[in-house]
Amino acid sequence: MAHSLLVVGSIALDTVRTPHGEAPDVLGGSATYFSVAASFLAPVRLVGVVGADFPDEFRRVLESRRIDTAGLEVVSAGKTFRWVGSYEGAMNEAKTEDVQLNVFGDFKPVIPPQFRDTRLVFLANGSPITQAAVLEQVARPDLVVADTMNLWIETQRDALLALLRRVDGLVLNDGEARMLTGEHNLVAAARKVLGLGPAFVIIKKGEHGAILAHRDGCQTDGPTTRWVSSLPAYPSLEVRDPTGAGDSFAGGMMGYLAHEGRYDFRRLVRAMAYGTVMASFAIEDFSLRRFERLSIDDIDARLRRYHEMLAF
Amino acid sequence: MAHSLLVVGSIALDTVRTPHGEAPDVLGGSATYFSVAASFLAPVRLVGVVGADFPDEFRRVLESRRIDTAGLEVVSAGKTFRWVGSYEGAMNEAKTEDVQLNVFGDFKPVIPPQFRDTRLVFLANGSPITQAAVLEQVARPDLVVADTMNLWIETQRDALLALLRRVDGLVLNDGEARMLTGEHNLVAAARKVLGLGPAFVIIKKGEHGAILAHRDGCQTDGPTTRWVSSLPAYPSLEVRDPTGAGDSFAGGMMGYLAHEGRYDFRRLVRAMAYGTVMASFAIEDFSLRRFERLSIDDIDARLRRYHEMLAF
Repeated sequence: MAHSLLVVGSIALDTVRTPHGEAPDVLGGSATYFSVAASFLAPVRLVGVVGADFPDEFRRVLESRRIDTAGLEVVSAGKTFRWVGSYEGAMNEAKTEDVQLNVFGDFKPVIPPQFRDTRLVFLANGSPITQAAVLEQVARPDLVVADTMNLWIETQRDALLALLRRVDGLVLNDGEARMLTGEHNLVAAARKVLGLGPAFVIIKKGEHGAILAHRDGCQTDGPTTRWVSSLPAYPSLEVRDPTGAGDSFAGGMMGYLAHEGRYDFRRLVRAMAYGTVMASFAIEDFSLRRFERLSIDDIDARLRRYHEMLAF
Repeated sequence: MAHSLLVVGSIALDTVRTPHGEAPDVLGGSATYFSVAASFLAPVRLVGVVGADFPDEFRRVLESRRIDTAGLEVVSAGKTFRWVGSYEGAMNEAKTEDVQLNVFGDFKPVIPPQFRDTRLVFLANGSPITQAAVLEQVARPDLVVADTMNLWIETQRDALLALLRRVDGLVLNDGEARMLTGEHNLVAAARKVLGLGPAFVIIKKGEHGAILAHRDGCQTDGPTTRWVSSLPAYPSLEVRDPTGAGDSFAGGMMGYLAHEGRYDFRRLVRAMAYGTVMASFAIEDFSLRRFERLSIDDIDARLRRYHEMLAF
């Protein structure tokens, strides 16, 4: 029986252009990608906000999965968060062409009473003050993991550092890790993050995979110096839309951890593998379309191939 | 009993500056890093050229290992190839400050008669015309692998394409793979290289590891679609000098293949793991210094840790 898993973050209407096409007004947002990816592995409790313009069809995408939408607030006088972005060339970085925060700009997450006993909490990218406000509303989670971004590292550094002392894990990308720590070397950056509070950190490198550093390391099978792992991305021949890859990674990772209910080094490496596989599906089509035609058998098959690829 | 392994490439005197210090007039060159790294796994036959200024002490570094220097030509009227370079920040790219080709500029490799039966040949970075001239001088190698660089892709493309039809494997870095194929996606680029002739290609990504694509894939344990692997770099907390990482990778890889005498997909993945480990040692100190205090036990221990890191 999986432990309960809560995510708080954005729900968006995205318009995305890549070399493979354009998708106008599609379902997006960090909490959306996270919860759909995680829902393949564990039930998810979602807290987010949308406007009156949020299509029923998108609500059904969430409700058709194991996602409890009791925390999905609808502001009838407002509009849903909108993001317009494009990718070029190697598609490593999104170019934001327009952002309208709309109802997400005033988002004060309210955790429904029945969600307050949640065991695992994922604080998707948001202001560290908002993220901290979520923690005030949950009773005694086993595991709290936060995402963050450049904006908060630059503008709310103190609030972010205060938050880091209250979380078990931090997930961020390579540029953010360098910005937060001042270290070029990502292994050194990861070690420095551990000094800021979290028991573990995962640095996402997009097409280059991810690095895990864990305070306790792999104590069961060797010296404590074994505190780092690094996994490659799943090799994808065609990337149609990288949007949501990082949140799908986090969803796969947290979904697996919720399923396991234990969070040691070895399980975190396996959680990264699940995250890697979920991200590899996310980028095969625009929005969450690939997830809409995905089965747990597809996930298991790809995890086996990924495992084989790493066997030597 | 390991198969014979020949390398033809540069031997240099390097002056290198990194954020960790400066090393003037140290031993360098592609064939040097390759042969020292490979010599831990198999005996190596080296063909290269130096000038009268090449220090005895550096010759002893080569001769103290399992490296046959019968093909080390000394041009008494000339000077050794010199490279002056520096690295900054994340040290992903060398900045070349000075190059003096000297005797390497006129290098016409002559393969000693006793080397002509070599089973495995590594053509380190050099003009594809020079690389092809080496192939004329070896009898019937089992496995020929070439390295190349931007310069030859731009200026001697036709000669390079002709060479690719005569080699079994190509090793190149990510920027070079994109330049050669016109593909941004490295998996797609790797597939395109296979269409140019080689049975396999390895794309080196520096701190992000390497991608292998193999024409035959992993036929023994699954469908032929399993033709790609990707391995991360070994996580290094401190990189003192990245010079020679790629050649050390190739040395570890080819040394392992010479030791095995078989070149199927699974062995190539394991060869990449050896290459990864040898590169991780190379970058821990300037020049070849880390190799001078390295044992096979150190290599085995790190390979085990690398293997554990990837286990999930």
